[in-house]
Amino acid sequence: MPVVLPLHVERLIDLALEEDLFLGDVTSDATLDPAMEGEGRFLAKDELVLAGADVAVRVFDRLGASCRFEGQDGFAFGRGSFIGTARGPVRALLAAERTALNFLQRLSGVATLTRRCADALAAGGGKARLLDTRKTTPGWRRLEKDAVRAGGGANHRFALGDGVLIKDNHVAACGGVGQAVQRARARASALLKIEVEVSDLAGLAEALSAGADIVLLDNMDEASMAEAVRRASGRVLLEASGNMTLERLPRVAATGVDFVSMGALTHSAKAVDISFEITG
Amino acid sequence: MPVVLPLHVERLIDLALEEDLFLGDVTSDATLDPAMEGEGRFLAKDELVLAGADVAVRVFDRLGASCRFEGQDGFAFGRGSFIGTARGPVRALLAAERTALNFLQRLSGVATLTRRCADALAAGGGKARLLDTRKTTPGWRRLEKDAVRAGGGANHRFALGDGVLIKDNHVAACGGVGQAVQRARARASALLKIEVEVSDLAGLAEALSAGADIVLLDNMDEASMAEAVRRASGRVLLEASGNMTLERLPRVAATGVDFVSMGALTHSAKAVDISFEITG
Amino acid sequence: MPVVLPLHVERLIDLALEEDLFLGDVTSDATLDPAMEGEGRFLAKDELVLAGADVAVRVFDRLGASCRFEGQDGFAFGRGSFIGTARGPVRALLAAERTALNFLQRLSGVATLTRRCADALAAGGGKARLLDTRKTTPGWRRLEKDAVRAGGGANHRFALGDGVLIKDNHVAACGGVGQAVQRARARASALLKIEVEVSDLAGLAEALSAGADIVLLDNMDEASMAEAVRRASGRVLLEASGNMTLERLPRVAATGVDFVSMGALTHSAKAVDISFEITG
Amino acid sequence: MPVVLPLHVERLIDLALEEDLFLGDVTSDATLDPAMEGEGRFLAKDELVLAGADVAVRVFDRLGASCRFEGQDGFAFGRGSFIGTARGPVRALLAAERTALNFLQRLSGVATLTRRCADALAAGGGKARLLDTRKTTPGWRRLEKDAVRAGGGANHRFALGDGVLIKDNHVAACGGVGQAVQRARARASALLKIEVEVSDLAGLAEALSAGADIVLLDNMDEASMAEAVRRASGRVLLEASGNMTLERLPRVAATGVDFVSMGALTHSAKAVDISFEITG
Amino acid sequence: MPVVLPLHVERLIDLALEEDLFLGDVTSDATLDPAMEGEGRFLAKDELVLAGADVAVRVFDRLGASCRFEGQDGFAFGRGSFIGTARGPVRALLAAERTALNFLQRLSGVATLTRRCADALAAGGGKARLLDTRKTTPGWRRLEKDAVRAGGGANHRFALGDGVLIKDNHVAACGGVGQAVQRARARASALLKIEVEVSDLAGLAEALSAGADIVLLDNMDEASMAEAVRRASGRVLLEASGNMTLERLPRVAATGVDFVSMGALTHSAKAVDISFEITG
Amino acid sequence: MPVVLPLHVERLIDLALEEDLFLGDVTSDATLDPAMEGEGRFLAKDELVLAGADVAVRVFDRLGASCRFEGQDGFAFGRGSFIGTARGPVRALLAAERTALNFLQRLSGVATLTRRCADALAAGGGKARLLDTRKTTPGWRRLEKDAVRAGGGANHRFALGDGVLIKDNHVAACGGVGQAVQRARARASALLKIEVEVSDLAGLAEALSAGADIVLLDNMDEASMAEAVRRASGRVLLEASGNMTLERLPRVAATGVDFVSMGALTHSAKAVDISFEITG
Repeated sequence: MPVVLPLHVERLIDLALEEDLFLGDVTSDATLDPAMEGEGRFLAKDELVLAGADVAVRVFDRLGASCRFEGQDGFAFGRGSFIGTARGPVRALLAAERTALNFLQRLSGVATLTRRCADALAAGGGKARLLDTRKTTPGWRRLEKDAVRAGGGANHRFALGDGVLIKDNHVAACGGVGQAVQRARARASALLKIEVEVSDLAGLAEALSAGADIVLLDNMDEASMAEAVRRASGRVLLEASGNMTLERLPRVAATGVDFVSMGALTHSAKAVDISFEITG
Repeated sequence: MPVVLPLHVERLIDLALEEDLFLGDVTSDATLDPAMEGEGRFLAKDELVLAGADVAVRVFDRLGASCRFEGQDGFAFGRGSFIGTARGPVRALLAAERTALNFLQRLSGVATLTRRCADALAAGGGKARLLDTRKTTPGWRRLEKDAVRAGGGANHRFALGDGVLIKDNHVAACGGVGQAVQRARARASALLKIEVEVSDLAGLAEALSAGADIVLLDNMDEASMAEAVRRASGRVLLEASGNMTLERLPRVAATGVDFVSMGALTHSAKAVDISFEITG
Repeated sequence: MPVVLPLHVERLIDLALEEDLFLGDVTSDATLDPAMEGEGRFLAKDELVLAGADVAVRVFDRLGASCRFEGQDGFAFGRGSFIGTARGPVRALLAAERTALNFLQRLSGVATLTRRCADALAAGGGKARLLDTRKTTPGWRRLEKDAVRAGGGANHRFALGDGVLIKDNHVAACGGVGQAVQRARARASALLKIEVEVSDLAGLAEALSAGADIVLLDNMDEASMAEAVRRASGRVLLEASGNMTLERLPRVAATGVDFVSMGALTHSAKAVDISFEITG
Repeated sequence: MPVVLPLHVERLIDLALEEDLFLGDVTSDATLDPAMEGEGRFLAKDELVLAGADVAVRVFDRLGASCRFEGQDGFAFGRGSFIGTARGPVRALLAAERTALNFLQRLSGVATLTRRCADALAAGGGKARLLDTRKTTPGWRRLEKDAVRAGGGANHRFALGDGVLIKDNHVAACGGVGQAVQRARARASALLKIEVEVSDLAGLAEALSAGADIVLLDNMDEASMAEAVRRASGRVLLEASGNMTLERLPRVAATGVDFVSMGALTHSAKAVDISFEITG
Repeated sequence: MPVVLPLHVERLIDLALEEDLFLGDVTSDATLDPAMEGEGRFLAKDELVLAGADVAVRVFDRLGASCRFEGQDGFAFGRGSFIGTARGPVRALLAAERTALNFLQRLSGVATLTRRCADALAAGGGKARLLDTRKTTPGWRRLEKDAVRAGGGANHRFALGDGVLIKDNHVAACGGVGQAVQRARARASALLKIEVEVSDLAGLAEALSAGADIVLLDNMDEASMAEAVRRASGRVLLEASGNMTLERLPRVAATGVDFVSMGALTHSAKAVDISFEITG
Repeated sequence: MPVVLPLHVERLIDLALEEDLFLGDVTSDATLDPAMEGEGRFLAKDELVLAGADVAVRVFDRLGASCRFEGQDGFAFGRGSFIGTARGPVRALLAAERTALNFLQRLSGVATLTRRCADALAAGGGKARLLDTRKTTPGWRRLEKDAVRAGGGANHRFALGDGVLIKDNHVAACGGVGQAVQRARARASALLKIEVEVSDLAGLAEALSAGADIVLLDNMDEASMAEAVRRASGRVLLEASGNMTLERLPRVAATGVDFVSMGALTHSAKAVDISFEITG
């Protein structure tokens, strides 16, 4: 069965293939017989959590080759493991290789970092779930959000249109947290919860009395977070955000917040190393 | 004068704006008066070399706001500096903010890392120039190649179509380095030089006698590079590649190679931190 | 200031202009001097609530003419009122006319019907708000949702991605309402409320104990709705849906439900009649 | 054999799928196993003439499911009839359902209304054929023109480029009907007939002496139409247009005009009711 | 006022600019200051009839420069004449130059050949008008049809959708010319005339009795054409086609046919020579 | 195996099919049974070298038919030869016919002229290879460059981005050939050779001392070319360009230059005549 990707992802693949192949592949065209068939293998050079497998499959497919992986997105591979295979005309394999790897390495990088952070969060006890943010690579939001889930994280809102998040500018324009929440309740879709960003416990108090559904605790220390959990006492969901690091996550989890969000999952994940070698 | 960006970049901006704004901005729509005008300022939270300014300008322009920066791509800003300003309807400013920052932070991250590496290379003496690779973010090749130049690096080939680079698969298919170079000479554009990838000095010898224009020394240690420089004695250009780190660059430069290429410039640059605050 | 429309709407305008003008306008090309300038006026031939003004403006703009309206979307015009004016080359006015009217008449039709229904709902007393559905014209969702708001309605979820609505198929696959709500709570974005569709009071009871945020009462009679309101006693929001007619709305409002949704707002709105006459 | 649709229709399907699925289907993703296969059935809840079957097939196909109908476009189904079946992953069926129905219900609505009007016209005797107009849903012209034919109507010109229709503005600019026809004859394609719109019998006389091929009788009463038929005595084709209603059609047919055109076929057709139920 | 081109032409310009500038302009980027402004002049190196001026204007406009011509499409320039000027950043002028010239030279080539053929036809006396065909450069139909009119020719049908032309395959499938015409009359738009292709006088007789509006005389000699004119005696329009050459046109015109169509106008026009020189 | 064409070529095919079929095929729709299957044959009416076969295959494929050729691009067919076959629904064959032929005839025209010129060049002795230029049909660069290779020519740079060619404007802006070459060497990709255009032997001397890799001899006579070859004595590659004709090529080849480039290969190739006849 063919892979069905969102049109938006197909358009990103269009851009990717065009930028690498707009003028063809002059080296392969000059040196390789178009009829020569071959096979190549993907190997993990780092320990990694796979993500982006469907995109890689589609990249090979677009160029007339096929590809399959030894596990789905979210599967963890040890260093040196055999990850997958591609087959088809050697020219197609070499033309697809770099683009497929560039997708796989970055997306698996996001999934791998997410897995590590999710594990750190779990180590702290508590119920906190790890969330991503909108700090994603422009054009890649869907792919990176999928990679976060592959790594064991959950997704915060996808875009500006599927979640209400009231920040200081909105509050200032409305003349207070209460009015801002009220307007949002009146005008936004009733299916959306209302989240308010606050930077201290006074802000939390305002948000609670305004009837927010979720409160984002921005850049607070763990002591304040714990106090916020105590004061909220279950009336709202609490999300901790700002300056999260792998080391800090267990301590944050221990405060009892419901969510911890980290921009770094997508904007600072290092690409993992995956090789592709023609084997025959 | 309006910014003229390549169509390919406009299409990436299309993807970026659609993914964040496909369903509108429900928070701003509910809480902000559409007629309210405002101004916001970009501030460097890290020391950085700017890149992506034109893209950010275009993002604001697409949404009906304007934006200008205090320096062009390649300009270095200290931590805390004022980088630029955007003006227009507050709804437009908030709708453009995240996408513009996501572009700026990643591209300035590439430029900043490149500057650091180029300086390290220069510190080693020698004539070596720093090059990028094709290990770029799919869809972003043009932008990242521009960011590398903004950082003081130079560009290796843009794509598979504007440079001949003969690797082991091509050699194997042709039955030897000599035959591979000969076929490339016969069939590829005469305006392109021919580069051959080798992994040891024996490979270099083959490449020299095959008449390559450039030889890529893959994953060699500095001693071998220095010996390669001696043996080539100016007959070909030499490019060192593989496992380059900031620390190692001065030593590599000292071997006398002509170019050093680093995939990390684009695949592992950390996003720099830039804030955008509505100031009025 | 130029109108900024979502890219998706620009693409629909592309389709619309291409389908009418792909081969040019053979009559005007044969009979009209390209330099002749003119002006035309839009007149309401029915009582109507305006919607789609920005799209009409953009259609004229695309063809090199300009257009402005006497009121924004949501403004009510009496039969015979002067609505707006377009100016530019007569060839452009005639080329834009039909497409602009086709947009305006349909979208104003949606707004006009919505206004009528919202008024009927208000007449019934109670707090119920009028909602649209996903039964929109394919390609027109954004425009029709905007027209509903212009008419005084509110929007239900925009798409399958910004709201959880659990129906019988989901329940069946999960083995019960409770499990379905639990899975949705665990896997969907925490910013989304969870709505469950039920067809009788037994279903409501299940949804209440499963912890739904909103319950859709599908095709119930007013007596059952009133009983549902009593049983829910404010613990969930209640949405009434199915077989709504203008006549029935006041009675439904009187039951005390929170929302009434009507597919007919978008799938069965009659186009209102608007004329465009070249006046000089 | 795969369905081959015009590119323009494929683009409309792109818009339709993107607007409903841009952020995925959060409910199904959370509650349904991706591997679960199923089948669903389309049922006619109204008496209807089918149109849009190929588009519905393509919508399912795009999402990885298949679909087939019990009759081609133009086939009449009684209330309660089984119309067609879709098969594939349940997630795909539910993702395609709403978009497919939105297409089918509107297009079958056009075909159904057309059939009813064509029958009414036939009941009046005479040779008159029922025509559509350019008052179509922007982006849907091809689909709605096909639906009109499925319903037993014929198509007037598709666009501004495949038919000459001289209206008052063209006449005014040319200084008379005679000059307008003459210019059209001289400058437009010789394969196109020339139609002139008139609003009374004096206008008809002018059009006849100007050598028009077809005359559009705009908003005339039946007596005038009959007189026009008498005066034209076969020298031109006559098209009656304006304020046509189902009730009036037999009387209009009886006047002996060649064509009757009705904007309402496309701009005011009510969507017919079709259900889709997952059956296993 | 900005040039308004059909979307289809804008897309062709997209392709043209991308194919030449996808990787930028490495020579200008390396050698020219981006701030340097300049001016360039177009000169006719052949005697020519201008066509494509608007496209050239748009090409410069897309790259941030401006351009204007000394005459509109259809204007004849002598060898050595000054045709137009472009102004803007020198990098933009050089980037636009080749693409603009490639459009201008080919389209002016079509207009120039058309003018020559139209003059030859006129020299033969008679009323025959020169027509183009569908033998155009794929992607360029609109532009080449416009160039034919600029040269003094008229357009045959634009596409397969705006004219009925019955050929042997259609006749064979219908079982005769009569039945084919009858079906076309019954099913195609009433605004379209019906043309039938015949290869001898027997065919003409069939077409006449079938009630064709136009008859295409395919590959007949002048004597047969003259006889066809005599036999048709004004009941149908006659189009002569096949193996037309400049030399033969006066003799064909003299036979009295209504139209002469020539594929060579578009498929074999030689590009005229136009130079562009930076003058300051 | 399906044909894989570059996205850019697919977009050109989109334009081509839309412009011919935007309104459908009214003749075939009216006269042919949609279920009727058939077969057609391509025949060479001229002696020709085939090019564009893959594009023709894809055109038929897009419309639901299939097509295969008796030889690949570059194969020479005698006048009257059978070239290939298409099979499928007759409506699809007739809808694809003209577009497929328009591609094939033009591209085979380029290949045929190139073969003739390459043979003439070979007849002159010497080592000169025949090159194309950037004087291609906008939108068709890739296809025409492929056709040149099919005809036995080689490709000069594809675009402004994959080759450095320093012309008088660049030299003027830099203040001399030496400085221009130096800047290009410093700033352009090291994989690109540097070519300089000169118009006389003095220019050649400058280019040689500036260290150019290739020198383009613009519009020189054969005596000067021969002298240039003598003076360059192998230090640079020499390309002769300007006013090349079939007759002159042997004499140019005899001067000993390395390359001869001809814009006429693409801008003035005459379409070859190929027929397509439905045979059953």
